[in-house]
Amino acid sequence: MRVDLNSDLGESFGRYTLGMDSEIIPLITSANVACGFHASDPTVMHKTIEAAKAAGIRVGAHPGYPDLMGFGRRNMVVSDDEAYDYTLYQIGALDAFLKAQGMKLQHVKPHGAFYNMAAKDPAMSEAICKAIKDYDPELIVMALPSGELCKAAKAMGLRAAAEVFADRAYEEDGTLVNRKKPGAMITDENEALNRVIRMVKEQKVTAITGKDIDITVDSICVHGDGVKALEFVRKLREGLTKDGIEIKPLAEFL
Amino acid sequence: MRVDLNSDLGESFGRYTLGMDSEIIPLITSANVACGFHASDPTVMHKTIEAAKAAGIRVGAHPGYPDLMGFGRRNMVVSDDEAYDYTLYQIGALDAFLKAQGMKLQHVKPHGAFYNMAAKDPAMSEAICKAIKDYDPELIVMALPSGELCKAAKAMGLRAAAEVFADRAYEEDGTLVNRKKPGAMITDENEALNRVIRMVKEQKVTAITGKDIDITVDSICVHGDGVKALEFVRKLREGLTKDGIEIKPLAEFL
Amino acid sequence: MRVDLNSDLGESFGRYTLGMDSEIIPLITSANVACGFHASDPTVMHKTIEAAKAAGIRVGAHPGYPDLMGFGRRNMVVSDDEAYDYTLYQIGALDAFLKAQGMKLQHVKPHGAFYNMAAKDPAMSEAICKAIKDYDPELIVMALPSGELCKAAKAMGLRAAAEVFADRAYEEDGTLVNRKKPGAMITDENEALNRVIRMVKEQKVTAITGKDIDITVDSICVHGDGVKALEFVRKLREGLTKDGIEIKPLAEFL
Amino acid sequence: MRVDLNSDLGESFGRYTLGMDSEIIPLITSANVACGFHASDPTVMHKTIEAAKAAGIRVGAHPGYPDLMGFGRRNMVVSDDEAYDYTLYQIGALDAFLKAQGMKLQHVKPHGAFYNMAAKDPAMSEAICKAIKDYDPELIVMALPSGELCKAAKAMGLRAAAEVFADRAYEEDGTLVNRKKPGAMITDENEALNRVIRMVKEQKVTAITGKDIDITVDSICVHGDGVKALEFVRKLREGLTKDGIEIKPLAEFL
Repeated sequence: MRVDLNSDLGESFGRYTLGMDSEIIPLITSANVACGFHASDPTVMHKTIEAAKAAGIRVGAHPGYPDLMGFGRRNMVVSDDEAYDYTLYQIGALDAFLKAQGMKLQHVKPHGAFYNMAAKDPAMSEAICKAIKDYDPELIVMALPSGELCKAAKAMGLRAAAEVFADRAYEEDGTLVNRKKPGAMITDENEALNRVIRMVKEQKVTAITGKDIDITVDSICVHGDGVKALEFVRKLREGLTKDGIEIKPLAEFL
Repeated sequence: MRVDLNSDLGESFGRYTLGMDSEIIPLITSANVACGFHASDPTVMHKTIEAAKAAGIRVGAHPGYPDLMGFGRRNMVVSDDEAYDYTLYQIGALDAFLKAQGMKLQHVKPHGAFYNMAAKDPAMSEAICKAIKDYDPELIVMALPSGELCKAAKAMGLRAAAEVFADRAYEEDGTLVNRKKPGAMITDENEALNRVIRMVKEQKVTAITGKDIDITVDSICVHGDGVKALEFVRKLREGLTKDGIEIKPLAEFL
Repeated sequence: MRVDLNSDLGESFGRYTLGMDSEIIPLITSANVACGFHASDPTVMHKTIEAAKAAGIRVGAHPGYPDLMGFGRRNMVVSDDEAYDYTLYQIGALDAFLKAQGMKLQHVKPHGAFYNMAAKDPAMSEAICKAIKDYDPELIVMALPSGELCKAAKAMGLRAAAEVFADRAYEEDGTLVNRKKPGAMITDENEALNRVIRMVKEQKVTAITGKDIDITVDSICVHGDGVKALEFVRKLREGLTKDGIEIKPLAEFL
Repeated sequence: MRVDLNSDLGESFGRYTLGMDSEIIPLITSANVACGFHASDPTVMHKTIEAAKAAGIRVGAHPGYPDLMGFGRRNMVVSDDEAYDYTLYQIGALDAFLKAQGMKLQHVKPHGAFYNMAAKDPAMSEAICKAIKDYDPELIVMALPSGELCKAAKAMGLRAAAEVFADRAYEEDGTLVNRKKPGAMITDENEALNRVIRMVKEQKVTAITGKDIDITVDSICVHGDGVKALEFVRKLREGLTKDGIEIKPLAEFL
């Protein structure tokens, strides 16, 4: 049994600092690094890649909508061609910093609204996966296991990494419960820990309806934006390790 | 005898069209393609690379300052680290579109104020060349033969392509006469043609002082932003060909 | 009988020119001037206001989504508070140039996707109208007569100007036929002319179903982005004048 | 004896928070509010103006270069017309939020590199002051007492507020000592307090050369970006009050 721990990094911009990158880096195995559209700038990207290299963690591109003011969290209706172009541009921009450091890009995980809209849109997902494949067919696509992006990746022959969330409730069909619904967030820390460890060990989770459903887990998304979040990740690592689950980057087992 | 003809392409943005790319492409051998900072966007880059591929011309990255409002023509004081980061980011972003088309990036030519400030600043030039080398040491740096960027490229073991301008007067030290000075622009078309053909054939040009100076020529910069500009390029091609000068991309002779 | 002719102006940006502002200005009575979000920049705004002043036409603010790359034509999901803030910011920015010229802002017309989404969204329309009223309750809101923005304006006690399009087909409920549907565009120029003149004279138009419907007309939206478009406006002016319809700005009759 | 205390506020952007606005607001009398070019966005501006209103402090516009990535701290060469246009645009945008709250704009203080470059450039200063005057001749220009912006404001008949810095050393001509020179920053807190109180009481300061020079003081610039900075402001208020110096906004005494 093995699992990857991923977190969004490099979301600072110019004079603005966001997240606790240096604290979360030692606790994860894969970083999703912002590429300058919804967050980050070339200097932040440079520093983030250097920090990831120093810590020996793997790096993925985290492309988003061109909406810095909305942090890429607002739905935007772009064409499938634009989704392809935005993905390709951002992958290339980030990969340049990896090339300069002698590193290899591991995966791509769309950000925020780009991730959510793709999960529901087969054509958009196909466009994003085509960009990824056209750039490098060895890249792993990180996605919701139940979403369209995951399907499109597999249909195209790309490796897909199934991502789960410790703090989110699931519907019976494996999709995330809408944040506006009651019970959408798992606020009890122990419950969150137990749920996610069970997902990895048994590939099962209890849906919001009470029914157990199957779930695939390759990577757990964790947050590094606060002291409490960091503490949760430390406990998660302990819990996983105690249960004999190895924590390692996607590229080593997918 | 041989020479490359280069032109700035792909400078449209969103709803805005600039230049006559489809008309100039058949007349040149190397395109400097904007990378989204001073001009262009991912969709424009995609289309520009496809057009370059269809025509069989070579492509270089044309990185600029992050100043879309000023078209990258306004001097900005950025640190050397920022110059490195901006160059690397833009090269990678553009190269992604080339990779997706199975093409290879040929050269890098900074744009506008980025080009002009680098030409006078050894540390900035070194930072830009380091980014180019860190990305791919096979890349050619296109630059003013008398400028600091050209020196930095050679000092770092990169191939440098000496670029000349048909419509500009030169000082005795090989630098361009400031546009504000009288006589800075060669407005007579025949004079411009004769001057540039002489530069290629004899590696000589008459400076604004009247004295003949040595000049290296690997590439001639031409414009595609008007009917008259296009006509000039056609005449230039005729003139060069008649004099037995072969027109071919940098990568084939440097 | 009287009607206003409005057109979108000042949509250039930096080095990029869009539209034929100097040609369309003498033909219209009200200009919707872009405010720097979906198009324009402070220098373009300055020049546009000076040109409008010289021609004696009236000016309205034309606020859009913060999406220069998509020219404000892509749907974006922003909160109602953001819709309020974006409207207020853009009105103030444009009005500064009017104040500096001793001119008075006449109206506000949202642009592109901001206009279309507001037309269908009562809460968003209320937020936009609140921004307009908070800025200056004397401002006129230009909107689709059948849309939510028009309703919100009236409910808030603001003057609303009903805008019609000569080149668009209408549904029976007075909404515009979706551009993707066959017959959505009126491509025959004479038909377009006759339709719009009838709208002004009889306040009637034949819907795409063939049924005559009532329509209110205070302003006709015309385009200035091509020789053909300009010719159409000239014919429209002739047609309106011949039928005794006076062409004058909204502020003079609403 | 009276003095104003000013601080830069509203420099957050989208998801990014900067400064401790709610802590510094009760300690100052005038806020310089960012206008969306070097920092801030319409939503941040709205909230900042509401907070200023609730606290009863006065508001000034804080226009900067269009360089969010560099936080407006990088020198950019813009034309005088652009300096005029950028100033006017930003004043209007901010003032819209004040108008909506029934408030009146008190002053304008350019930000960062825009402030520093203007201080040395008479033509640029004249352009900025012309924008301010064209918008509203009652506005106060906040500037270095020894700089060109101050001179231009007075020459144009505008009220100028002389601003001093507690933590900066001065040259004999009243300009700030370049930050790169040793001794440029006053790091001892008590020394800073004593210096600035003496400036207000005696209109004198000891230059870096040791010589006492005359200095005009209408406002003291203070920082709100850390616990230590806030503590300094509290001590400054105590010190000023103890010495019988009244702390009140510019508009009440200029």
